[in-house]
Amino acid sequence: MINILSRTKVFGGEHIRFSHESQVNNCTMTAAVFLPPQIRESQAPLLIWLSGLTCNDENFMTKAGAFRAAAELGLAIVAPDTSPRGEHVPDDPEGAYDFGLGAGFYLNATQAPWDENYQMYDYIVSELPDVLDEHFPVDTDNMSISGHSMGGHGALTIALKNPSRFQSVSAFAPICAPMDCAWGEKAFSNYLGDNEEDWAKYDTCALIEAGAPELPTLIDQGLADSFLEEQLLLDELEAVCEDTGYNAIIRKHPGYDHSYFFISTFIEDHIRFHWDHLRQA
Amino acid sequence: MINILSRTKVFGGEHIRFSHESQVNNCTMTAAVFLPPQIRESQAPLLIWLSGLTCNDENFMTKAGAFRAAAELGLAIVAPDTSPRGEHVPDDPEGAYDFGLGAGFYLNATQAPWDENYQMYDYIVSELPDVLDEHFPVDTDNMSISGHSMGGHGALTIALKNPSRFQSVSAFAPICAPMDCAWGEKAFSNYLGDNEEDWAKYDTCALIEAGAPELPTLIDQGLADSFLEEQLLLDELEAVCEDTGYNAIIRKHPGYDHSYFFISTFIEDHIRFHWDHLRQA
Repeated sequence: MINILSRTKVFGGEHIRFSHESQVNNCTMTAAVFLPPQIRESQAPLLIWLSGLTCNDENFMTKAGAFRAAAELGLAIVAPDTSPRGEHVPDDPEGAYDFGLGAGFYLNATQAPWDENYQMYDYIVSELPDVLDEHFPVDTDNMSISGHSMGGHGALTIALKNPSRFQSVSAFAPICAPMDCAWGEKAFSNYLGDNEEDWAKYDTCALIEAGAPELPTLIDQGLADSFLEEQLLLDELEAVCEDTGYNAIIRKHPGYDHSYFFISTFIEDHIRFHWDHLRQA
Repeated sequence: MINILSRTKVFGGEHIRFSHESQVNNCTMTAAVFLPPQIRESQAPLLIWLSGLTCNDENFMTKAGAFRAAAELGLAIVAPDTSPRGEHVPDDPEGAYDFGLGAGFYLNATQAPWDENYQMYDYIVSELPDVLDEHFPVDTDNMSISGHSMGGHGALTIALKNPSRFQSVSAFAPICAPMDCAWGEKAFSNYLGDNEEDWAKYDTCALIEAGAPELPTLIDQGLADSFLEEQLLLDELEAVCEDTGYNAIIRKHPGYDHSYFFISTFIEDHIRFHWDHLRQA
């Protein structure tokens, strides 16, 4: 069962916010779906969008400017929250922005107290598509995935671990090597414990290095992004792709930062990239 | 002198937030400008965007999705704040959203204590263009004006009172007859006093009825807008246009509400409408 929070017409389609009881995260989760105008004719191909640190389901839907191209083509989009939520859900003890609420890192936590709720990997891969299947006219057998920053990390790792589930993957300014940056080290050590073999299951560079199958991959990175050198580590991803022969389209954009102004500039390219790889109804 | 708060690349152009000391409003004002990529070649034609109740300079710039078309054409956009700001600026005694801070109604207040700061009409018509002239490569002799809700009221009344200053005017869900709705009655009685002759100087319907010169005018209204019947009163504007022969393009969109989802759907039409009436460099 889902609880519809709002339905709003946009670009001839519909933006629907809803909440539901998540079994895997053991809390109420909120998400938003864009349904294109063509939806009545058939089930729409689906793009899953994963947002970055501090975000919820609203940032992408209000700021990315994705609906014009999605409505034109007939692509549905879902934007889930970035972590479990609720008063009973544990948060960073100091309320930091980079861990706990708003910072689920799209993994399955194994360490107490986080393992009770922080199961965002299973949520994105299984539970959310099941909920969408049941309640919306979208085709979860015909999906692609994208995201920004922590959500770019989520999109890449989830796609690399489930290549048969996704037609294509893209990312804006992804955290490419979380094992090697402060954001990732803090999240992985707390959620997953000290064994770095467990970390490697959620690290894009490590997954490609270990031979993850290739799928169509597009990455955009702004060169004025203040997180690029310390946290995102695109250089490491480029080196791994070079070493392994993994074929990713990596575009670097002088002058662009880490914000939704950057995302909105190039989102249409991502929408059309995914559309070219999705089966068209 | 202006104080640059941020510069962000978007769609090949630049989004710049700045603050400056306003003489007319007697406070520090913040505004944002979008400069298109073509700006280096010549001064860009300018669209002034006026936002609605509770907004500041950020809502339009982050949510409207206006930059793609503006960048393509070479149109600059400025989004000022919706009222004076600051601890010394008086606000609604009960902190209501529809009066005081965030609700300047684009008029010159005549009543104490509001008249010390609430001079948004002079700010938009004179002071802001002067500041832009001095600090940005935009052509304030080649302007159009648009806005949403309270800002639609502002755009229409300012254009009707200054037809030689603007090439065209447009509005999303404007407050068409503020003299006849609760929002307008509260604002006008407090800012302007009890003489309704003073109110009529800031009422779109009254201005057209009194023979304001016609300029190219486009108005979009969603028919699922919950403010339409009680506050916006498009019916009154249609009747006045019919009576006077004022030729406005008025489009009604079934299913659309009062939000930026509505604005983002049709903003490109407004950008192109204004572009067709601006002198192209």
